[in-house]
Amino acid sequence: MPAVRVTFHPDGTAVDVESGSTLLDAARKAGVMIASICGGDGICGRCRVQVRSGTVDAAPTALLTRDEIQDGYVLACQTRVSEGVEVGVPAEARGDGAQILIDEDARRFRALAPALGGVQEYPYDPIVRKLYVDLPPPTLHDHLGCQERLYREIRRHVEPAAMQMGLKVLQTLPRQHRDSEWKVTATLGNRGETTEVIQVEEGDRSGACYGIVVDIGTSTVVVHLVDLTDSKTLDAEACYNSQMPYGAEVTRRIIHAERQGAEALRDAVVGDINDLVSAIVARTDVELHDIAACFASGNTTMLHFLLGLDTASIRKSPYVPTTTCPPPVRAAEVGIRINPRGLLYAMPSIGSWVGGDITAGILATGLADTDRLTMLIDVGTNGEIVLGNNDWMLSCATSAGPAFEGSGVKCGMRASSGAIERVTFDDDGIHLETIGDAKPLGICGSGLIDAIAGLFETGHIDRSGQLLPERSGRIREMDGLLEFVLVPAEEAAEEEAIVITQADIENLLRAKAAIYAGAKILLESTEHSFADIDQLLIAGGFGNYLDGRKAVLLGMIPDIPTERIHFVGNTSLNGAKMALLSRAAFERSREIARSATYYDLITYPHYYEEFMSAKFLPHTDLELFPTVGESIAASTAERSGANR
Amino acid sequence: MPAVRVTFHPDGTAVDVESGSTLLDAARKAGVMIASICGGDGICGRCRVQVRSGTVDAAPTALLTRDEIQDGYVLACQTRVSEGVEVGVPAEARGDGAQILIDEDARRFRALAPALGGVQEYPYDPIVRKLYVDLPPPTLHDHLGCQERLYREIRRHVEPAAMQMGLKVLQTLPRQHRDSEWKVTATLGNRGETTEVIQVEEGDRSGACYGIVVDIGTSTVVVHLVDLTDSKTLDAEACYNSQMPYGAEVTRRIIHAERQGAEALRDAVVGDINDLVSAIVARTDVELHDIAACFASGNTTMLHFLLGLDTASIRKSPYVPTTTCPPPVRAAEVGIRINPRGLLYAMPSIGSWVGGDITAGILATGLADTDRLTMLIDVGTNGEIVLGNNDWMLSCATSAGPAFEGSGVKCGMRASSGAIERVTFDDDGIHLETIGDAKPLGICGSGLIDAIAGLFETGHIDRSGQLLPERSGRIREMDGLLEFVLVPAEEAAEEEAIVITQADIENLLRAKAAIYAGAKILLESTEHSFADIDQLLIAGGFGNYLDGRKAVLLGMIPDIPTERIHFVGNTSLNGAKMALLSRAAFERSREIARSATYYDLITYPHYYEEFMSAKFLPHTDLELFPTVGESIAASTAERSGANR
Repeated sequence: MPAVRVTFHPDGTAVDVESGSTLLDAARKAGVMIASICGGDGICGRCRVQVRSGTVDAAPTALLTRDEIQDGYVLACQTRVSEGVEVGVPAEARGDGAQILIDEDARRFRALAPALGGVQEYPYDPIVRKLYVDLPPPTLHDHLGCQERLYREIRRHVEPAAMQMGLKVLQTLPRQHRDSEWKVTATLGNRGETTEVIQVEEGDRSGACYGIVVDIGTSTVVVHLVDLTDSKTLDAEACYNSQMPYGAEVTRRIIHAERQGAEALRDAVVGDINDLVSAIVARTDVELHDIAACFASGNTTMLHFLLGLDTASIRKSPYVPTTTCPPPVRAAEVGIRINPRGLLYAMPSIGSWVGGDITAGILATGLADTDRLTMLIDVGTNGEIVLGNNDWMLSCATSAGPAFEGSGVKCGMRASSGAIERVTFDDDGIHLETIGDAKPLGICGSGLIDAIAGLFETGHIDRSGQLLPERSGRIREMDGLLEFVLVPAEEAAEEEAIVITQADIENLLRAKAAIYAGAKILLESTEHSFADIDQLLIAGGFGNYLDGRKAVLLGMIPDIPTERIHFVGNTSLNGAKMALLSRAAFERSREIARSATYYDLITYPHYYEEFMSAKFLPHTDLELFPTVGESIAASTAERSGANR
Repeated sequence: MPAVRVTFHPDGTAVDVESGSTLLDAARKAGVMIASICGGDGICGRCRVQVRSGTVDAAPTALLTRDEIQDGYVLACQTRVSEGVEVGVPAEARGDGAQILIDEDARRFRALAPALGGVQEYPYDPIVRKLYVDLPPPTLHDHLGCQERLYREIRRHVEPAAMQMGLKVLQTLPRQHRDSEWKVTATLGNRGETTEVIQVEEGDRSGACYGIVVDIGTSTVVVHLVDLTDSKTLDAEACYNSQMPYGAEVTRRIIHAERQGAEALRDAVVGDINDLVSAIVARTDVELHDIAACFASGNTTMLHFLLGLDTASIRKSPYVPTTTCPPPVRAAEVGIRINPRGLLYAMPSIGSWVGGDITAGILATGLADTDRLTMLIDVGTNGEIVLGNNDWMLSCATSAGPAFEGSGVKCGMRASSGAIERVTFDDDGIHLETIGDAKPLGICGSGLIDAIAGLFETGHIDRSGQLLPERSGRIREMDGLLEFVLVPAEEAAEEEAIVITQADIENLLRAKAAIYAGAKILLESTEHSFADIDQLLIAGGFGNYLDGRKAVLLGMIPDIPTERIHFVGNTSLNGAKMALLSRAAFERSREIARSATYYDLITYPHYYEEFMSAKFLPHTDLELFPTVGESIAASTAERSGANR
């Protein structure tokens, strides 16, 4: 294959690729960030670029307007090159980096969807459903009103419940009954103790009933489209949370909302949801009109922002949210564009800092239904921990800080193109893997864990995390601070060394110590030890990348037999999907939220002490980590032998 | 007192009145129609006229704007004359006549209000209430969310119930809690099985909680303002139903709605309600904001129009309404201007032609709670009849036609200034009383009944209602039709004889026959006779004027002992007020509506036969009216003696 040159503007970055490559491949090879949230399937429309010179072979797409096509716009992932071209990358396509993490997320969620086993424990019985009824036409002896006639028929099909109907639905009912010859489809929505007739359509429309599930993470928003008639997940989309500019951490965003109002934060996340739903709708034959429910999960603050609720008291002692159990409202009321009468549900929270995402996690994992002692750790900017079983549940939140997400770290970056995501130390030196195989730009969370675990294993840092300059020439002092040179300047994309500083290590130690200390306190306050844990479940987008052995080595998770440790993925999303698909599961989530005890670590006198003890590698008390102790002994002996 | 001349324009009608008379007195004396719904108390603002020349003594009023006062506008009832003046009567003040009936109604309702006894059978427990709660501020050990904290406190005061709260209320809750130092007032509204927190106010606002009760009659709209904290009726207003131009009868209005949409009909009645509420609010210190509930009663069609519901199928067999039990909705949703989150309730109907007004009547009279066999007749354009007791209830509607309201009658008019309302025949001749003592203009319903009863008693008509020309020179033939000259042309206001035609008599006979036949069929179908009726209750604005003895004489109501006949006034309004003031009464009204059987007279094979038999005076079967039989015998004997 002959090579052709592709030049990307405005930077002028040029790359030679094989003829037949896509512009997206070329961009990745060149280290040029082009947004893509569909994994190159040509369905998200985010990788829109402009061909300024040269001829390309672009697949037909409905995601570009006629005007855009005339102006030379193409989708980078759907456009192949066979001659030299000049390509302009618009600012919006550059976005916040080539969102590889998100691509992976979207794929992973699609793969997970059919494996959703938990819902099978609950009867399939969606909280919003369509019911087709063939009403007996009225006669002189059966002259029940239109509303009462419909109610009577609905009650013949579904369990008797209090029913309600809005004025707008009632106003059109008689005409619909007449026009359809008394054959109508009622959309029924669960509203606490009552069932609302959300809308009535003429004829049989019971086959077209969809819902969306939204997981609002502090950094990522994920949407799944679910067919409510058969519980199948049809499609998924994900993007970064557009609230990021208002602060990477929850607390920052709350402060922003206090000072400048919460509208911008709500608009940001609602915009994300609408964009994701639009993208999905654009590539399926589902109409927005037929999406009658939206089920949102996320931490308490994210759900508050979504609903436009006051978050001020969440961040201040005694940490009181506006509500832990938001009522169903019309999705349109917050600006979500689905059926205008469609309902928006939110996963109930346990407390201000243990949110609906954790309730969903408990639901999705079955933690509340097992008699085995189970610990669930949801790793993210906040590390939430739940300990319990079918008898009791205790939960707490630790502020791990953003180190796990590559933030607050000198050379940290999010998991996007160029990020070092894997680090292996062996006899030949240090081996790096970067996302997109690009020249290293920085280091993301999983890379940081790998690197620090490696530094510890190889004796570059001691158990307190102190870099040991005598161990390697890669350890240097800059501005009075020690740092380990992971990538020398000449090998780095930006020709500046990628380093791990003493401060970075301490950040990570604080983060892992916070989680470990929280976990330990939950155990101790119930008179358990780590050895009693039958199942340790690690959830979160992060969990996907985490190397369990290294997490144990660092003392981030306890040293228990590997077979007890399970990575369970995005349980926030999966739990919300279960609640959407089963009224019993939704009811169960409310019970979980009510019954799980929120344990405020600040009120625990020994928390700080535990936290300080956990700031060692793996821990001050090595007996807590017997396998790590052995490993340390072995490698120390090996190094001693080598040095001798 | 010297006489001064008042000239009314645009007609140029002049009248001499005593100095010190009000312009309203002058207008009435002159036969100039000026609307007034407050009875001359200066509180409705309807009698606004413009003084064009001359000086008047006008009492201060807040019902006129600064501009209007500068332009010479005054309230006719509050303005006294001491010199000759020229007065312009604007079209809107002329309205549909000087609404004397309505004045009387308004006074009557005010007098009735304290006599409302029925509600005492139900616990005072309004369907909307305000509850002041002093919330325990959150602590680290009691960190319940704002919503849950409020719910918990509410549940400590009122019986546990499912609760709900709209997003708008939830959004401001934390700020209100903080600003009020956790002392707030929740307005709780009954919504079927759930209790809605309609609004939350800071501090103790529990003393300011009001509701309005609206009776939407086909011709009259009445509003009462009720203090929900002590159940007292504070004020009342009434006006003609502005739907009148769309048809005097319900059916005409339905046809209008089918052809041109129901918006105009809804706007008309909602405008009336808003005007009445405004008038009340203007003269009390109640703020619209504190009116949190509106309870509407009326026939099924009126309630449909109010809610913007489709009425088409009401008038067509099998006569199916949109709903017999309208859900509570926000009053603002139909345009009623009270608290924007205030709820609008409607009295449940029994069927398409036996509406919420009759349910209210059953509730207000206690018909459903007595073991005595009771018949309730609500006399109006439609005559609805209920027969039953605490064990069973049967109801039907008869289309009496508008004769009782003075319509469809050659010289008929509504009960306003100049209408003949009383007719007495004695040896000296015929004595007339007109409303406002004006020169007779026409005859209203009560006058028609009086006149026809008198014609019958005096032998001017026979038992079939035929005028007997040989009996009197006042009976003449015009265009081939017999008529009785009640007022010769020279004594009439418009210098044309006021007559009662053979057709008018037949109209009235049809109307009274319809009611009587309906009543008889209800009795027969339950194997009863009139003699079994323990209580006969006559309800309706009409009932106020009806002379019971004459109604029996005509055979409109059965010939039962007078002590069993009771005039019960506007039970539609009184029942609605009970439901507003007692959740138990409201619940009882729903039970009544469900349990009362609607009996469609059209399905009854003998209805036509009964109707035809009842078209005689008092009835074909004189044995049904023994006292009338005796009276006829006596007066016939007397006349024979006199003639001999």
